[in-house]
Amino acid sequence: MKIQEKHYHTIWIDEDDPTIVQVIDQRKLPFVFETFAMYSADDAFFAIKEMVVRGAPLIGVTAAYGMYLATRHLKNENWEEDLTQVAKYLKSSRPTAVNLAFAVDEMLVFILAHKEDKELEAKVLAKVGELKKQEIDFGDQIGEHGLEIIEAIYKKKRTTVNVLTHCNAGWLACIDWGTATAPIYKAHLKGIPVHVWVDETRPRNQGARLTAYELGEQGVPHTVIPDNAGGHLMQHALVDVVIVGSDRTTVTGDVANKIGTYLKALAAHDNNVPFYVALPSSTFDWEMNDGVKEIPIEQRDGNEVAAIEGWHDDQIKKVRLVPEKSMVANYGFDVTPARLVSGLISERGICKANKESILKLYPEKNNR
Amino acid sequence: MKIQEKHYHTIWIDEDDPTIVQVIDQRKLPFVFETFAMYSADDAFFAIKEMVVRGAPLIGVTAAYGMYLATRHLKNENWEEDLTQVAKYLKSSRPTAVNLAFAVDEMLVFILAHKEDKELEAKVLAKVGELKKQEIDFGDQIGEHGLEIIEAIYKKKRTTVNVLTHCNAGWLACIDWGTATAPIYKAHLKGIPVHVWVDETRPRNQGARLTAYELGEQGVPHTVIPDNAGGHLMQHALVDVVIVGSDRTTVTGDVANKIGTYLKALAAHDNNVPFYVALPSSTFDWEMNDGVKEIPIEQRDGNEVAAIEGWHDDQIKKVRLVPEKSMVANYGFDVTPARLVSGLISERGICKANKESILKLYPEKNNR
Repeated sequence: MKIQEKHYHTIWIDEDDPTIVQVIDQRKLPFVFETFAMYSADDAFFAIKEMVVRGAPLIGVTAAYGMYLATRHLKNENWEEDLTQVAKYLKSSRPTAVNLAFAVDEMLVFILAHKEDKELEAKVLAKVGELKKQEIDFGDQIGEHGLEIIEAIYKKKRTTVNVLTHCNAGWLACIDWGTATAPIYKAHLKGIPVHVWVDETRPRNQGARLTAYELGEQGVPHTVIPDNAGGHLMQHALVDVVIVGSDRTTVTGDVANKIGTYLKALAAHDNNVPFYVALPSSTFDWEMNDGVKEIPIEQRDGNEVAAIEGWHDDQIKKVRLVPEKSMVANYGFDVTPARLVSGLISERGICKANKESILKLYPEKNNR
Repeated sequence: MKIQEKHYHTIWIDEDDPTIVQVIDQRKLPFVFETFAMYSADDAFFAIKEMVVRGAPLIGVTAAYGMYLATRHLKNENWEEDLTQVAKYLKSSRPTAVNLAFAVDEMLVFILAHKEDKELEAKVLAKVGELKKQEIDFGDQIGEHGLEIIEAIYKKKRTTVNVLTHCNAGWLACIDWGTATAPIYKAHLKGIPVHVWVDETRPRNQGARLTAYELGEQGVPHTVIPDNAGGHLMQHALVDVVIVGSDRTTVTGDVANKIGTYLKALAAHDNNVPFYVALPSSTFDWEMNDGVKEIPIEQRDGNEVAAIEGWHDDQIKKVRLVPEKSMVANYGFDVTPARLVSGLISERGICKANKESILKLYPEKNNR
């Protein structure tokens, strides 16, 4: 997608030096546009852990690039063992996103299978490129399927379609297109009038900082709201559809996404507003059946709640929000039970949030 | 209640000069403790409008003091007409809180009824003192009734009772005790172990700034959380009861309170967590039957969403959170339908959130 009219991906091999992987430094957006250079698997770990990059699909691809960088650097005779350790280490950077583990494991298996090959590095890089291209295609396809939902609302309503989204399941969370934003961009490109209610998404404000930024850069009308506002908007018919992303989805259709998603799902359900989850199939966890009980929920640094970053005097400044004496808690995700989800939009199409419908789209997973 | 071990009310006549009304300047808490002196009805209007004071009960008493200050200053022959204009003006300072209008009207009727009296000012001041004392007594009684709820949970659970609250319905929103906090303070004073989950309450962060501050000053254990977190906590049985305040309550039990309250009520309902609203009867609107349709919802300055104040380098600083190009919206309140409310805790006792139960507590309102 575009930033200041120029086309970007969120992650790419440096044009001048294939030993460097560049990413957009999402810690500084929307205030400053900078890139962050990764030279090693340690850098990839740091980038994921410290949220230089975030979003399940981008985390997966970043970790895959981390495995590529590790392959370049591990030259000693125990390198297979070391690489297995690196894989474990990369997987530990964020516990909730399931495709992080998938991407790392897929790379590990690939590298070990090709360990005798000439030009191993080039092959590993090509494999990462495949994963990257797959995520782009997934976004594109999710966009086409989700477009049908927005188009159907528009055909009935004949005026601006109001979409509410939470956090950033945008192209900045992916490589291009995004997941929840892909249908919005497709609708906008097709000339369907869309307006997006953007939950600011405390504590890290990915909505206010990233979703608002990327929608603005593509010229999509949008309004940033506190996370508290969505229920009121839905009570007053100001939201036509909710579309969010997912960090992990059980085979039964429960969805782990940024903390607060569950509250919006409850409000949508209470006001008969359709609530869709857009996700590449890499976020499915085929082993889990009960999201609330089984999906591990990351607890992050309390400072993300106690203080907040913003723009002041042409600098990013962090201000304290909470009395010195007070405790804080910072849960990263919550789980929206399948019963509150109107449908899942994956690269293969739209299905209901239940095991039967999901397995109909993914019949190869049916033999469990 | 206490601030640094000293007892305070939120509003009082200056000890040295009865022409001055002092309030705690709540715009600067918890970072700086300062008072704000009001010399005129204009000052009272400013204090309410700019949220030097906030919270339905305190707004009502502040406006009543505004009427007292107006009485002191209106000496010309058209003063009755002028006072009526002042009353209208004060009522326009915040549209949602219904007891603002009640307090102002009560003062206007009183003043006009006693306009020939000697020592009118002293009588008006005494009348305001009565309103103030009534609010304190209401908080005290709400605390006693609500204590029964917490005590019952404690008797069953035999370990710390976790209360979740939204915004500040604390003593800082009232004169003393608070509404939602009154049962918590009573329980704490009685030695029942309580812990409070404090919603930070964007956009103005009254939870993080005021509720956390006042709980800390009384020594009540508490944890500040993003507004997004409550649903997750309730899914995992980490909340025993939700208690919030109200800015306006219909005779049918619908509750207008700070934006985001409705989302917590939905989560409580979905997880069988009791959801109580603590309110002095001055917040009842006996004329309204459908809260979502009828209660006017204040839209406030978008800058409250686009930027936030915090503490940086020993100063209160405001940082921008949203891209320059993005629109913002700022709805002040939402309405929680009575069906999601387990009960109302008023100074007269606990009742169900329906017309029959409410009118049983307030039989004098039954002849409508």
